[in-house]
Amino acid sequence: MADKPGILGKVTSVIGDVGVHVGSIDLVEVDDQTQVRDILIYCKSKDEVAKTVQGINALDDVEVVDQVDEIMEIHRRGAVEMVSRIPIQSLTDLRMVYTPGVASVCKEIQNNPESAWDWTGLCDRVAIITDGTAVLGLGDIGVVPSLPVMEGKAAIFAEFANLSAIPILVDSKDPKTVIETSLNIAPSFGAIQLEDIAAPACFEIEEALREKLDVPVFHDDQHGTATVVLAALINAIKATGKKTEDCNVIMLGAGAAGIAISKILLDFGVKDIVVYDSTGPIYKGRTERMTKYKDRLADITNKQGQTCPLAEGFKDKDIFIGVAQPNMVSKEMVASMNPDPICFPLSNPVGEISAEDAIDAGAAVYADGRGVNNALAYPGIFRGALDVHADAITLSMQIAAAKKLAEIADEDCLLPDMLDRNVHRQVADAVAADYLNSKK
Amino acid sequence: MADKPGILGKVTSVIGDVGVHVGSIDLVEVDDQTQVRDILIYCKSKDEVAKTVQGINALDDVEVVDQVDEIMEIHRRGAVEMVSRIPIQSLTDLRMVYTPGVASVCKEIQNNPESAWDWTGLCDRVAIITDGTAVLGLGDIGVVPSLPVMEGKAAIFAEFANLSAIPILVDSKDPKTVIETSLNIAPSFGAIQLEDIAAPACFEIEEALREKLDVPVFHDDQHGTATVVLAALINAIKATGKKTEDCNVIMLGAGAAGIAISKILLDFGVKDIVVYDSTGPIYKGRTERMTKYKDRLADITNKQGQTCPLAEGFKDKDIFIGVAQPNMVSKEMVASMNPDPICFPLSNPVGEISAEDAIDAGAAVYADGRGVNNALAYPGIFRGALDVHADAITLSMQIAAAKKLAEIADEDCLLPDMLDRNVHRQVADAVAADYLNSKK
Repeated sequence: MADKPGILGKVTSVIGDVGVHVGSIDLVEVDDQTQVRDILIYCKSKDEVAKTVQGINALDDVEVVDQVDEIMEIHRRGAVEMVSRIPIQSLTDLRMVYTPGVASVCKEIQNNPESAWDWTGLCDRVAIITDGTAVLGLGDIGVVPSLPVMEGKAAIFAEFANLSAIPILVDSKDPKTVIETSLNIAPSFGAIQLEDIAAPACFEIEEALREKLDVPVFHDDQHGTATVVLAALINAIKATGKKTEDCNVIMLGAGAAGIAISKILLDFGVKDIVVYDSTGPIYKGRTERMTKYKDRLADITNKQGQTCPLAEGFKDKDIFIGVAQPNMVSKEMVASMNPDPICFPLSNPVGEISAEDAIDAGAAVYADGRGVNNALAYPGIFRGALDVHADAITLSMQIAAAKKLAEIADEDCLLPDMLDRNVHRQVADAVAADYLNSKK
Repeated sequence: MADKPGILGKVTSVIGDVGVHVGSIDLVEVDDQTQVRDILIYCKSKDEVAKTVQGINALDDVEVVDQVDEIMEIHRRGAVEMVSRIPIQSLTDLRMVYTPGVASVCKEIQNNPESAWDWTGLCDRVAIITDGTAVLGLGDIGVVPSLPVMEGKAAIFAEFANLSAIPILVDSKDPKTVIETSLNIAPSFGAIQLEDIAAPACFEIEEALREKLDVPVFHDDQHGTATVVLAALINAIKATGKKTEDCNVIMLGAGAAGIAISKILLDFGVKDIVVYDSTGPIYKGRTERMTKYKDRLADITNKQGQTCPLAEGFKDKDIFIGVAQPNMVSKEMVASMNPDPICFPLSNPVGEISAEDAIDAGAAVYADGRGVNNALAYPGIFRGALDVHADAITLSMQIAAAKKLAEIADEDCLLPDMLDRNVHRQVADAVAADYLNSKK
């Protein structure tokens, strides 16, 4: 842009006119007559980008010389990489990290198999296994398009918990194949995170792997979510002065997350949960559209056998949790709940009810999917489990993680800051302590 | 040790008396009366370590306060780790590397599958797949004890070629299972290195994967070895003034390496090769202890149908290559070769004939398994293949790598310095150019 007063104002106004937010503005280059500036903008679509560029280029004395998609650039060549922990600068280095020196390490492990935990990276290495069938809100997009998600998760593992996570894409939609493949490569890892696998395959796969492997197997979409929801709920219950054992819960969604949240909440001690799926409430004896997993849910939830439709289902409930579809819940429903209701419409990116509507209808505590983020739980849970070479991640370890997260949240916050590395360290220590305690 | 003159001399003398070499000696701590020194020693066995420690402790005024096995320490918690290429310091970082930002990267790949090479780590990611059946000279030690070797190899990939290599241990001795498992997880990687898999399973596995995958599949024990042997041989032939097309080769060993070396040498243009296994020479029509792979070898080697026993097999040969057992070759055998014979007894860690004996018997050029190291070839070969998104690593690409290695070796050296990163870069460029050339 020309180095004249007022030009930058015109540029930022044009951007604002498109409806786009402006972030940082850096000065890259200046000479006598012109300035080059790097302007960060937040666009929701390629169309917004095009309109913004067009608008700026239509101004006098200004030109867009380059445009870069920061998100794409962050993922260029992948978000994670494998590096050597040892610089190889001399032949001695080489002969220690590889042949002939490495032979003595192999022999030590051969003679003492448990020592593999000391002399290899197993103690930090987590497989992130997916079949690409339920990726974010995008659904069944296939394994390779899901890879940036797995790499993002691996980056979080590395940054928050010093764990080496390896994306493993299993190119099959047959749960049996995913199970067999995972079992065949399981010795390569100290733990397995299952990721973005659609229900009910995710249950079958997790069950089989947990039964057959003596390392932690953890489906994050179920248990990571459940752990963070419980953590937020502990503080929400506290804030409203309710008692856990008196709380009635209504949950929308009986998929992977819904089932896992139900289990952890019941184990934690809420009074009852009624789960609704797209057919209606789940109850013992329902025959329509049931699965093995919903049958099990019917066994442990809905003790009163509630069968009313969703519109009436909120009555007498203290807590609403949504892991279903956007905008399913009305103000009337929330208004029909017990006093000081807790509302967690977690569907992503748009919740079951907006914050405005929920609060307007009387919600005492509100949280949505942006705030209740798995990344608060899984790095610390895996770190803790691996630190004590646990053979599984139990419900008790998850509850220990949730309690710790609730405990270390700032006052007036439901959850702590996930960017604070110490949060993950404290979760890890709580999880490890719970495991060791269970073995006493 | 007491801070008195003469003590260090006593210590190093005791070490020498055990027959152990001394490396660097560092001063760690000094006070009025004592010094703490860190003395690096090279022991061949735990017994030598024990004797050395015992000898030192028997001296007056000296005590061993700690002993550390440097090789084990280098492998503690693994030689490699997965790290994030992006620091995650802000919520914006997190929302770009993971949800919601990452969804746009997934969608881009879904719409344009080829772009996965740009927007994920596939372009740098290599699986190192083993079944643990032929690990170094240790044999079938199992998958987990082989992991330090795979990690060592991954460290070399990272250090020499900026490649992200992932150890994948496949817990099965059935080649069909290794094939299926590898195919199922193949979309996770830009290339596959097969490693330390015993013959003949290695051939079956490599053949099946090459046929079914459109990414490079490379069994290093075969082709890495073959490439470096050819490179050294090019310079050896040059040094002796021989002509490749006139050279007769005798090879000991018809395993993975022997078969691959035979193929590359014939493709490169040597006159003939006679391969001996433990039964004798391999020839067309031999019925004893043949396999599908030895039959194929009989079709392309031993044009004269040589059937004499090993002792007479060296007659009229210009080049001897051993990939078999220690000390199988006598001075007489070498002496019976054509003038200025080239001797490569590559068996590890002890060759088929010693340097002294080979040279004494008239060898004009000698190289053993320590000098002819795969690590010179595979990092650059994979780097080059991935740089151009090659669908395979062909014999022609291997020969291009060998020629480049031969070309850039210092004068009077058979091979260049593998610690020189530029060597691997040049190999990569030669391999990439050969591939692109073949597609013209």
